[in-house]
Amino acid sequence: MRKVLIIHGPNLNLLGKREPDVYGSVTIEEINSALKERAKKLKLSVDIVQSNHEGEIVDLIGDAEKKYSAIIINPAAYTHTSVAIRDALQATKLPAVEVHLSNIYAREEFRRQSVTAPACRGQISGFGSTSYLLALEAIHSSF
Amino acid sequence: MRKVLIIHGPNLNLLGKREPDVYGSVTIEEINSALKERAKKLKLSVDIVQSNHEGEIVDLIGDAEKKYSAIIINPAAYTHTSVAIRDALQATKLPAVEVHLSNIYAREEFRRQSVTAPACRGQISGFGSTSYLLALEAIHSSF
Amino acid sequence: MRKVLIIHGPNLNLLGKREPDVYGSVTIEEINSALKERAKKLKLSVDIVQSNHEGEIVDLIGDAEKKYSAIIINPAAYTHTSVAIRDALQATKLPAVEVHLSNIYAREEFRRQSVTAPACRGQISGFGSTSYLLALEAIHSSF
Amino acid sequence: MRKVLIIHGPNLNLLGKREPDVYGSVTIEEINSALKERAKKLKLSVDIVQSNHEGEIVDLIGDAEKKYSAIIINPAAYTHTSVAIRDALQATKLPAVEVHLSNIYAREEFRRQSVTAPACRGQISGFGSTSYLLALEAIHSSF
Amino acid sequence: MRKVLIIHGPNLNLLGKREPDVYGSVTIEEINSALKERAKKLKLSVDIVQSNHEGEIVDLIGDAEKKYSAIIINPAAYTHTSVAIRDALQATKLPAVEVHLSNIYAREEFRRQSVTAPACRGQISGFGSTSYLLALEAIHSSF
Amino acid sequence: MRKVLIIHGPNLNLLGKREPDVYGSVTIEEINSALKERAKKLKLSVDIVQSNHEGEIVDLIGDAEKKYSAIIINPAAYTHTSVAIRDALQATKLPAVEVHLSNIYAREEFRRQSVTAPACRGQISGFGSTSYLLALEAIHSSF
Amino acid sequence: MRKVLIIHGPNLNLLGKREPDVYGSVTIEEINSALKERAKKLKLSVDIVQSNHEGEIVDLIGDAEKKYSAIIINPAAYTHTSVAIRDALQATKLPAVEVHLSNIYAREEFRRQSVTAPACRGQISGFGSTSYLLALEAIHSSF
Amino acid sequence: MRKVLIIHGPNLNLLGKREPDVYGSVTIEEINSALKERAKKLKLSVDIVQSNHEGEIVDLIGDAEKKYSAIIINPAAYTHTSVAIRDALQATKLPAVEVHLSNIYAREEFRRQSVTAPACRGQISGFGSTSYLLALEAIHSSF
Amino acid sequence: MRKVLIIHGPNLNLLGKREPDVYGSVTIEEINSALKERAKKLKLSVDIVQSNHEGEIVDLIGDAEKKYSAIIINPAAYTHTSVAIRDALQATKLPAVEVHLSNIYAREEFRRQSVTAPACRGQISGFGSTSYLLALEAIHSSF
Amino acid sequence: MRKVLIIHGPNLNLLGKREPDVYGSVTIEEINSALKERAKKLKLSVDIVQSNHEGEIVDLIGDAEKKYSAIIINPAAYTHTSVAIRDALQATKLPAVEVHLSNIYAREEFRRQSVTAPACRGQISGFGSTSYLLALEAIHSSF
Amino acid sequence: MRKVLIIHGPNLNLLGKREPDVYGSVTIEEINSALKERAKKLKLSVDIVQSNHEGEIVDLIGDAEKKYSAIIINPAAYTHTSVAIRDALQATKLPAVEVHLSNIYAREEFRRQSVTAPACRGQISGFGSTSYLLALEAIHSSF
Amino acid sequence: MRKVLIIHGPNLNLLGKREPDVYGSVTIEEINSALKERAKKLKLSVDIVQSNHEGEIVDLIGDAEKKYSAIIINPAAYTHTSVAIRDALQATKLPAVEVHLSNIYAREEFRRQSVTAPACRGQISGFGSTSYLLALEAIHSSF
Repeated sequence: MRKVLIIHGPNLNLLGKREPDVYGSVTIEEINSALKERAKKLKLSVDIVQSNHEGEIVDLIGDAEKKYSAIIINPAAYTHTSVAIRDALQATKLPAVEVHLSNIYAREEFRRQSVTAPACRGQISGFGSTSYLLALEAIHSSF
Repeated sequence: MRKVLIIHGPNLNLLGKREPDVYGSVTIEEINSALKERAKKLKLSVDIVQSNHEGEIVDLIGDAEKKYSAIIINPAAYTHTSVAIRDALQATKLPAVEVHLSNIYAREEFRRQSVTAPACRGQISGFGSTSYLLALEAIHSSF
Repeated sequence: MRKVLIIHGPNLNLLGKREPDVYGSVTIEEINSALKERAKKLKLSVDIVQSNHEGEIVDLIGDAEKKYSAIIINPAAYTHTSVAIRDALQATKLPAVEVHLSNIYAREEFRRQSVTAPACRGQISGFGSTSYLLALEAIHSSF
Repeated sequence: MRKVLIIHGPNLNLLGKREPDVYGSVTIEEINSALKERAKKLKLSVDIVQSNHEGEIVDLIGDAEKKYSAIIINPAAYTHTSVAIRDALQATKLPAVEVHLSNIYAREEFRRQSVTAPACRGQISGFGSTSYLLALEAIHSSF
Repeated sequence: MRKVLIIHGPNLNLLGKREPDVYGSVTIEEINSALKERAKKLKLSVDIVQSNHEGEIVDLIGDAEKKYSAIIINPAAYTHTSVAIRDALQATKLPAVEVHLSNIYAREEFRRQSVTAPACRGQISGFGSTSYLLALEAIHSSF
Repeated sequence: MRKVLIIHGPNLNLLGKREPDVYGSVTIEEINSALKERAKKLKLSVDIVQSNHEGEIVDLIGDAEKKYSAIIINPAAYTHTSVAIRDALQATKLPAVEVHLSNIYAREEFRRQSVTAPACRGQISGFGSTSYLLALEAIHSSF
Repeated sequence: MRKVLIIHGPNLNLLGKREPDVYGSVTIEEINSALKERAKKLKLSVDIVQSNHEGEIVDLIGDAEKKYSAIIINPAAYTHTSVAIRDALQATKLPAVEVHLSNIYAREEFRRQSVTAPACRGQISGFGSTSYLLALEAIHSSF
Repeated sequence: MRKVLIIHGPNLNLLGKREPDVYGSVTIEEINSALKERAKKLKLSVDIVQSNHEGEIVDLIGDAEKKYSAIIINPAAYTHTSVAIRDALQATKLPAVEVHLSNIYAREEFRRQSVTAPACRGQISGFGSTSYLLALEAIHSSF
Repeated sequence: MRKVLIIHGPNLNLLGKREPDVYGSVTIEEINSALKERAKKLKLSVDIVQSNHEGEIVDLIGDAEKKYSAIIINPAAYTHTSVAIRDALQATKLPAVEVHLSNIYAREEFRRQSVTAPACRGQISGFGSTSYLLALEAIHSSF
Repeated sequence: MRKVLIIHGPNLNLLGKREPDVYGSVTIEEINSALKERAKKLKLSVDIVQSNHEGEIVDLIGDAEKKYSAIIINPAAYTHTSVAIRDALQATKLPAVEVHLSNIYAREEFRRQSVTAPACRGQISGFGSTSYLLALEAIHSSF
Repeated sequence: MRKVLIIHGPNLNLLGKREPDVYGSVTIEEINSALKERAKKLKLSVDIVQSNHEGEIVDLIGDAEKKYSAIIINPAAYTHTSVAIRDALQATKLPAVEVHLSNIYAREEFRRQSVTAPACRGQISGFGSTSYLLALEAIHSSF
Repeated sequence: MRKVLIIHGPNLNLLGKREPDVYGSVTIEEINSALKERAKKLKLSVDIVQSNHEGEIVDLIGDAEKKYSAIIINPAAYTHTSVAIRDALQATKLPAVEVHLSNIYAREEFRRQSVTAPACRGQISGFGSTSYLLALEAIHSSF
């Protein structure tokens, strides 16, 4: 059974707990449940990590090849600033999919640029928690 | 049965016919077949149009509310230049999903910006013809 | 009797039909009626065309000298992108007035620049449908 | 009878007195006469001030609500530099119309940007002294 | 007793009189009273001036050394445009504090830059009328 | 006999008919005659099309492989804005030559950039109608 | 008793220990003592943390609501680069004040921009260790 | 006897009174004496004005033709910001010379650009008070 | 017999001698032979110079009027940097044609700009050694 | 015996393990051995650390003075983004040398800028693992 | 007797020989005569050199200290491009004055920037050949 | 014995002769001696040239293959402006090392960019004359 590493970037631990008008009312736990359920249907297994630390995310990606067949990552704020995560994604042999809850094109100017996306296979943004499920489908269909 | 309008932008008629190393070997007919098949599974119906004309695409979007419940659009070259298509997408009440075959972040600088995406619900790029199928799933899951 | 060509650019066919909070509740038909009535008072005759096609608008301007004495144009989205319409306006001997329903300076950054205005005699923006009537007055007072 | 404040910005006192090929031969007095005559027809009364001082113009706008129902302003050089006038226009409850004798889009690059226009209802540029009369019409039709 | 010159820049005379949702309901008179009261507590005396004129503000700063020990200035719109005020602040031997009612970083792009701040000791922004009182404290603690 | 497709872009239909001081007095018909004559000498055959429509030009290029061995294109205004035409030229297997009547480097800043040239074999600009004839020579010498 | 979280960003642990001409001779311990003393006077309690880790600072802000009523943060180098800290500050319901020892406007160009300030209530910069005490006053006066 | 108007811009009244290491120890009175003496030698008469007010300087230039044959202006801070002074200089028939005490190229980036110089005959910068005397020589030699 | 000066800019002496995959296998001697042969057919005579020295090229152009009727120049690297060569071309009365072996639009960003082309009659780029021959034809047809 | 701290930045742990065509086949262990051997020859001792965490690297530099006489750092991705590491290098009294395996000028545009280099004594880039050895020589020769 | 080195930059040898409407009808010989005559009056001696070669000008400046007390230089085109000449001027102990015949602010955008001026004492531009004479006066008055 | 060509760029002839606080007190002769001595140790021979002429440096590089095995170049001012030297370095088969005495990142903004470095194997900057010796070591270790 192929294993997919799912990485939630900074501040995503706060999802659904506050500012429901901005972040929606879905919690990170609910997203994780949905991901596990969908993974099961697709005969995949998933490991899910949330981290606010750029370095930890780099560590995770650097070690991923040992256990995983693919990576799904929502780099959140690091999307726009982290060359280190981009380099990690570039270095790994695993296919990676970048995911965003909101449509990054409909937000502030500086959020319309992704430093990390060039090192991913593709990007899915704007569909809320469904973005993650579509990423799982994309990974699945690429196997 | 809900109906989805699928718009292929400029030069996509040439898909699979030439430069297979760049554009892949999938033809637009094969993408269309896959879309119809997937639509069927999702209990949706699709109309598919290809046009090289910015004005025609604006016309299509402007008229779409009468017959359709959603739009999937690959604006291709017009992604980066067409304020007219953006305004049409903004004006319509229908949800729209922007789709790209290639990862636009991994190409020339000017392709990393989307003029049209801010007027869409979300964007899916980089998964080849699967991008379209994921868009259909995204639309479906939003109904 | 002098004849004025009035060109409504892309998406203006949708005016008043939807999003009344954004686009106002005046329809394009009502604007056209007001224009015809005002023209009558000024002893002018008007032909009114709406097109979503940049090429069609270029055709119209290129042919205008044969029948018209002046042009009023709301290039809408093409205001910000069309060098072709600018060149057509530059090439024609007819005086042209650029018109905008909304105040383009109070919108997104990219709407504050007009590619087409340098080729017009002047620009009137921000007065809703009255912008068109003022343009007719401007044309009239220049004869 | 509604009263309109008309403000001529810096260097407009020199109009018609010199460089007739650049500034035209119409003097500021002639523009003022035409404005008064047109105001009379429209059952409006006008007060007209010319000032080269940014601070004075800010004072005038700040005090205008007490006596006036609308403002017509040709900020001239201050169009491109004065955040203070913009803020004054933003602060007042009165509708304001920005007016330019020449087509600002057909001049030097730095004249194509208006700092003050975002705080106005609309802008009319390029019709010589007629620009002012159209502004009066615009104000009149908005009452 | 040390004397502090407090300068309110353009349009601040209108504070609290209109648009209470934007500018708050505190009037400039109320700010001035609070400043006088706080000054008294700190054994300082204050002179307060409001001016819409860049030149007047330059005059005030140029003459300040004769009577004052420090300057508190809210340059308002001139924050973003006035090299003349910056040069005046640079030339004076007095310490100056720049003050803003609103958080200038949370407004339009052009308001995020301060031309005048490099010539001040420090800047306090975002605390409404409290910004002024904190500036008085800052001045006091630097004596 | 090899066939070359020659495409005149927007507003070139107006050549020689007006503004002879800007556009020269040569008409498009005269250019076409000269092209046919030169083609004959070079044992080539030419088809010549003029279009103001970006989409039509994309259509023409997309279909060209069926009948033609090379393309000569004067994209006129679309030179500076059309990613769609660039993509069409990139997609075709045919060699293409970009042609300009005037020296695009000696005109407005925005005309010094060509969006379409990177997808052509080369560019010839500044020699009036001779530019087209040189393009034909270039095509001929590359066979 | 309300509790305020005070965060010292990267390299602030070195304060006063070296380069006294640049960083001043005040140590971080002295700033902390002054903060505690002032807090006591204002009937507030403070927790003070120093961290060189962007992720740790994001963690601290994300957890702050449980124990604190407000945040004072000197993001130091992260002021200019950390979208992650900005997002954390935006997500929290607590009011935050950004503090800088030096006048960031009087330093290198890249230090004049604050990525984090838009998510704070206000910013105080340039008063050395007094900046922190003023922030405490600002927080206090907002309760 | 020809009369030359000499205008000292903002903050030049402070010359020589403070910060002798930056501004030099020459006072404005000494510069004025030197100017009068040199004028006498050149059989010219001079009127000298200092103003911190942009509007006043515009007034002076606008009225200058009545009494003067030439203008020497040190626009100081307004060099870099005042389109109004530039327009006044452009409007007057008198030749004008722009003068700077310091070498504006050897200072901050924003001081290397002159908004006003394009409307002058020439510019002399960097020679301290001698800059003014050279300007007088330049004016003299152009008569 | 009219004489044409042909100038090969820096590094063109190395043509064909190395890196045949980049520079092609044609040597500068072969280009020169082809040029002479074509010149003969066109009843022209040519002088050909290669120089790596910007100053020498300026000298050559400055002296050209004495002996030549036209200039063909491949400024190579100096295309993108030499205002001196541009000024020399602007100063000469001779018509000049700028030539490039490769398509400068299809190379690095900085090679897409020509400092020298605005001073030439036209530019031909992308046809290898044929670019030179076409330039000779262009010169010939302009006599 | 002087001790040098050698810091390998993010993703350098992966060196030589994958993508040998991009990163070369030398492992980080081999670089470390070579460094130790060279240090021995130079009578220096080295401590070598690899970290993916910006904060950890800031910690290391901040503490280095206690044990080390110099720092050699390959900031990898943080070269282009980390003001925090720059500030740490600026704060330390130790000389630091920035090292890069590849020639950063021959890569993507954003890699040509170093945020950290201004705080180092010098930079060595492009010589693979030899870059580190040269840095050690540079440090050695500066003692 | 002090000796001044006067350097005429590229293309100035052509002065007065052609394009009298652009360059004026004064020849370089006439400028040189005027310079020698003025020098005599000021009890100075001058050596005058013209060169189109950046390297030669660098040589001249590098050697100047041996024989000269000051430098007057019109770097012409090299004003805008030559860091080498700037560095030479920076390295020499001699005072240098930059001179321009035309007002560089009234020409193309790229001519408004001087790379070389920051290394000079001052700059004089816009007075034709008088610019040189004023420079001589400036040098003289600085001795 | 392998031979290395060492090129000192513009103004380096002045090294150590003047401004010892800026350029250091080491003369170019001392650097050359050190280079020869180190070369001897490494069993290499060196030829050393200094030139202020861009064209000469291009000549030297273009001819280098005949006699040399590698190039060490300090392009000095030409680092930031010379595409010609970059192209020469790109064209030669020899490995080249770019060397700078000072840390170019710690100087003016325009010195932080190297036009020539992308065509070199690597760059060493900031170690004074040691930079050259390290370059020799780098070359040596690459043989």
